Amino acid sequence: MMKSKSSVIRFLYAASEQSADVFYLSGVFVPDPYLSMVVSGRSYAVVNRLEYGRVKASSKYDEVFLQESIHQDAAKRLKLPVGSIGPAEYMLYFVKVHKAKLVEVPSSFPAVYYAKLCDAGLKVVIGAEPFFPARELKTDEEAKAIRQGNAASAAGIRAAEQVLRASKIEGKHLLFEGTILTSERLRMTIDQACLGKGAVAQHTIVAGGKQGCDPHEGGHGPLKPNELIIVDVFPRVQKTGYHGDMTRTFLKGRANDAQRALVAAVRDAQMAAIAKVKAGISGASVHKAANDVFVARGFPTERRGDGFVGFIHSTGHGLGLEVHEQPRVSPKAGRLRSGHVITIEPGLYYPEIGGCRIEDVVRVTKDGCELLSSCHYRWELK
Amino acid sequence: MMKSKSSVIRFLYAASEQSADVFYLSGVFVPDPYLSMVVSGRSYAVVNRLEYGRVKASSKYDEVFLQESIHQDAAKRLKLPVGSIGPAEYMLYFVKVHKAKLVEVPSSFPAVYYAKLCDAGLKVVIGAEPFFPARELKTDEEAKAIRQGNAASAAGIRAAEQVLRASKIEGKHLLFEGTILTSERLRMTIDQACLGKGAVAQHTIVAGGKQGCDPHEGGHGPLKPNELIIVDVFPRVQKTGYHGDMTRTFLKGRANDAQRALVAAVRDAQMAAIAKVKAGISGASVHKAANDVFVARGFPTERRGDGFVGFIHSTGHGLGLEVHEQPRVSPKAGRLRSGHVITIEPGLYYPEIGGCRIEDVVRVTKDGCELLSSCHYRWELK
Repeated sequence: MMKSKSSVIRFLYAASEQSADVFYLSGVFVPDPYLSMVVSGRSYAVVNRLEYGRVKASSKYDEVFLQESIHQDAAKRLKLPVGSIGPAEYMLYFVKVHKAKLVEVPSSFPAVYYAKLCDAGLKVVIGAEPFFPARELKTDEEAKAIRQGNAASAAGIRAAEQVLRASKIEGKHLLFEGTILTSERLRMTIDQACLGKGAVAQHTIVAGGKQGCDPHEGGHGPLKPNELIIVDVFPRVQKTGYHGDMTRTFLKGRANDAQRALVAAVRDAQMAAIAKVKAGISGASVHKAANDVFVARGFPTERRGDGFVGFIHSTGHGLGLEVHEQPRVSPKAGRLRSGHVITIEPGLYYPEIGGCRIEDVVRVTKDGCELLSSCHYRWELK
Repeated sequence: MMKSKSSVIRFLYAASEQSADVFYLSGVFVPDPYLSMVVSGRSYAVVNRLEYGRVKASSKYDEVFLQESIHQDAAKRLKLPVGSIGPAEYMLYFVKVHKAKLVEVPSSFPAVYYAKLCDAGLKVVIGAEPFFPARELKTDEEAKAIRQGNAASAAGIRAAEQVLRASKIEGKHLLFEGTILTSERLRMTIDQACLGKGAVAQHTIVAGGKQGCDPHEGGHGPLKPNELIIVDVFPRVQKTGYHGDMTRTFLKGRANDAQRALVAAVRDAQMAAIAKVKAGISGASVHKAANDVFVARGFPTERRGDGFVGFIHSTGHGLGLEVHEQPRVSPKAGRLRSGHVITIEPGLYYPEIGGCRIEDVVRVTKDGCELLSSCHYRWELK
């Protein structure tokens, strides 16, 4: 093992399955929490024998240690009985090996190990977010992976559209292949289409009518004709770990004037926001561009009793290894930089009209942005 | 708000999408981290306006607060500017409101908030694992949800079996519908079958030959005739959050004597382990029952160079809202209790023969156990 003169050691303790930071560092999915570290620009992992061969062969770590070996070494070095060695002791061991003066951990680092490191008299600082700032700025390869995610989203959305087109209106219901079409049925179709593109979709939103006005309501029960139906699909590509995130709003039957005005305002707000995006512009001004359209068209945002109506969420968020990551595109958001990948997804929600959200993904460039998602905007399905 | 006389307040800060503890408490999926707490046996959450309506209507919390309101109240009570209020300040606010003397957090609690609570002079203890001990002992309703998860696993496994049966052996390959059958193709079939049962499968293992000897290798590329193929399916039911976890090992073509002896030993070890399970028996003795079969049949477990061969993992693990949870069924594991739900999944791995694992799920009872998974054990597919 290289004995570094560096004085800072950075520890992460999480499953790469759950932690985007650890996956970013490792490039390999590990289902249970384990120790990763970065010292002097080199990265290391300590994994058990179930993971050792695979992680050693396929991860981006510079060096992979077998937990069973570290266990013995740590007990010797720390002069502790083997039975008392655990992840915190591995960390103390590596601090000694690397003669580190300072430990840095991410804000999400488990409190139990943070406390143990502090109790051992180490100086532990909690790093800024994001822990790996490079995660915010996407390379061409990452942009390609996000495009693949959005190709999966689009496949899901088009599958939903086909089912809606093939459905028949019968009274207050939609009939598909002889049975009443539900949010659950449509979600299954969408998620299966995503799988066909190698991506796993979870909590896909298929929410019609009033359900669509609660932005994180997944949608349940029969879908109805002449109602706006929000379809929001944000799958993760199994191979790369990157997500897609797209939304379209459909209506099966015939829209009324209020619905048409709502959808037109949302699409125009989206285009206004996209037109605003470029490096150096603040996320706040992108959000304002969308909101200005809603204000000009007379769509107020306000509290009504326990709920809220209008443009009740921010315009967008960073997208990558997490569905929601930095940067934000919201009223107080800071400057966009080249390489930021963000969603642009304005929406309007009024229980008496319905909800509409239209979402695409762009990568910020010096002069504007490039679209990383692609699907048509036809929404009224006869 | 109820002003409690209790002196302990328990905080959790995580997305219920990621934290099984928070999902257990809330019963509702929330995609981004948020504050949950328990005081005097009552549970509370603070969520933003995107989540408020849905969480209030459909969660198990006794009371749900709107983040925007708490924000104002906390600034007033803590005499801080509104702009400086964040999750740590919400926590300090609730400590004051409930006159709590002690704060308890789970071991996975984010270090950043743990440090802030300590810096504020509070007494913060890190709770034992599991944070909600009741999570370990499954109710009838939870057992039913796990059965549903395993029904999804079984649907996936049977879908894989059908594809293998329908495939034709052509030289060193399997042909299915005219193309070379790969791990990826079979995985897609399995995952789509799980979706058909309302469950999302991720990282399904379809690993043949030598790949199957690396227990967490997902499997990739063409599957071959006359090789053992491990199929391990652990989907999560979208509605309940509970998992299934089943493994079968197949072989398309004709097995040789070594493969037959290996598979027979694994199945016999599994039956020996299941026969041992009952409340009061240690997980260690269940593991030993499986291992004894392997020793008796002459299957050694040992290190070979960088890798390991034989029975290289533990016999099982708890299953519920997480794929791997308490209790363990391993060499040092403690006593099983009525209501524990565990996998029983012995396996043997030798690169020259192949890997075999057979996994089912049982709930521990006073006198033995009940099987929560069901699928046949035929494995040699002509």
